[in-house]
Amino acid sequence: MKMSVLGLGLIGGSLARRLVAAGHDVTGWDTDRSTRALAGEAGLTVSPDGPGTADVVVLAGPLDALPRLVEEIGGRLAANAVLTDTGSVKGPVLAAARGAGLGRRFVGGHPMAGREVAGFAATDPDLFDGVAWVLGLEDDTSMAGWLRLADLYTGIGARVVPATAAEQDTAVARISHLPHVLAAALAVAADGGTPLAATLAAGSYRDGTRVISGPPDLARTMCAANAVPLTVAVEEVRRLLAGDLDGLLLTGHSARARWPPSTVETQLDASDPDLRRRLQALGRAGGWVSRLAAGRLSVQGPA
Amino acid sequence: MKMSVLGLGLIGGSLARRLVAAGHDVTGWDTDRSTRALAGEAGLTVSPDGPGTADVVVLAGPLDALPRLVEEIGGRLAANAVLTDTGSVKGPVLAAARGAGLGRRFVGGHPMAGREVAGFAATDPDLFDGVAWVLGLEDDTSMAGWLRLADLYTGIGARVVPATAAEQDTAVARISHLPHVLAAALAVAADGGTPLAATLAAGSYRDGTRVISGPPDLARTMCAANAVPLTVAVEEVRRLLAGDLDGLLLTGHSARARWPPSTVETQLDASDPDLRRRLQALGRAGGWVSRLAAGRLSVQGPA
Repeated sequence: MKMSVLGLGLIGGSLARRLVAAGHDVTGWDTDRSTRALAGEAGLTVSPDGPGTADVVVLAGPLDALPRLVEEIGGRLAANAVLTDTGSVKGPVLAAARGAGLGRRFVGGHPMAGREVAGFAATDPDLFDGVAWVLGLEDDTSMAGWLRLADLYTGIGARVVPATAAEQDTAVARISHLPHVLAAALAVAADGGTPLAATLAAGSYRDGTRVISGPPDLARTMCAANAVPLTVAVEEVRRLLAGDLDGLLLTGHSARARWPPSTVETQLDASDPDLRRRLQALGRAGGWVSRLAAGRLSVQGPA
Repeated sequence: MKMSVLGLGLIGGSLARRLVAAGHDVTGWDTDRSTRALAGEAGLTVSPDGPGTADVVVLAGPLDALPRLVEEIGGRLAANAVLTDTGSVKGPVLAAARGAGLGRRFVGGHPMAGREVAGFAATDPDLFDGVAWVLGLEDDTSMAGWLRLADLYTGIGARVVPATAAEQDTAVARISHLPHVLAAALAVAADGGTPLAATLAAGSYRDGTRVISGPPDLARTMCAANAVPLTVAVEEVRRLLAGDLDGLLLTGHSARARWPPSTVETQLDASDPDLRRRLQALGRAGGWVSRLAAGRLSVQGPA
């Protein structure tokens, strides 16, 4: 498969390296000259001409640049190309794709992977092993395009999760953006204590603030882009903190103990005329696709 | 030195094993028969007669049992024995010690170490390497007793932090008890989302909820015992969450980036008549004792 990865930071660079290792024909590009140099030294084919003939074009630039990138790239895609991205909020980029007449062939993507470090120097081809990778499946998304990406990403070890942009954005507000806000609040509250508090801060402080130790602009951009569901989640936390703290510790422990929920494997037929609806229901129920082979999808669903 | 460690769970068991490895004469005891069996198999001397002649008696039982234990043990201590504990809240146990006429010889202790697992099976003699270990230094604490413990704990690799019970309890509310409450709130908020949210939960959720994955009774007991300063810290977080979230992400990142603050080494003289005041000021400023040798204390203080 011929691939083009635009943006070679932590996510795009790790993906490009992993796809090359899997034997794909990968061209990468980045607006930053030093990133291109690093990627070239690492053996990637670096060229601005990628999108022209690629079967799959991956936009892996900054979240707030994605809508503009979709519009710029849209007119330069090969006839059969699938367009995807790796941004953590899916609503705005889907709207841009629809606005550019790319609604069918745009399959929004979001790998649930990250580190506190950024840039090509931090890339790791194993970054996606076992991670959940959301692939946007709206009612008008090209099923063939979705399956092409699902095949590609399960092939590099990811668990492919079908979801609409709205479902994914509501979900990540609670499990990704909220943790960033709470980590920031903990860091500020600890900092407002005595110097003794800073000296006594250990594992629970370190883990509770880890996600805010990375570049703050990533967290700020994704939280701003997902402000409505994030605000709902933050208000829920404020209500919880105003209540019985002892009860909260108990229910919090129980909730954590139930995670991750157990699943069982079943199969879907790639030619099932109801495949879209079945995949949407699977993702909504907490399931994912783990493998595509010989016209069958191996899926994990609720036990 | 002859030591007695009463309570051989994660903290007491790890301490007893480490002290044995350091060449001390250590007797341990636990009310739980299977814990005693495990400790015996690991080579500890297990006997209920420990406190009688020990130079240092360490109460490492559950936090809510400490005040009662202090009263029980108090009358059975050798004339010159120092009594300490390992509980995470220092006010109530200090009050019990004073009530039992042990105010001078009780030096409350709190190692900033822990794991999500409990019991002797989880013990690790390296658990205290480099950790901050609070040693309570009130205006009436025996300076000789404090120095005996500071020598012992710096000798097994801990950073010994002088603090009053009130100072330590206010500090740990922010950097230890608050993280447990926020972890619980995050777990409950994530659990209140869709099954999709649970599937997408990854590193930021996992790290943000780690401390609540352990036995909930430890967290509940310490938060209940430190309710007043904890409530102040929780209310501060509620105010932060009601404000500008983008600004919070920025200030949170800055606060995290300043941690841990850098320090410089200086020396104190163990015979300095002002030693108590100097140590109290050191702890208040975020410093600690790293070594005692030849009548000198090597200390780390603010840069």
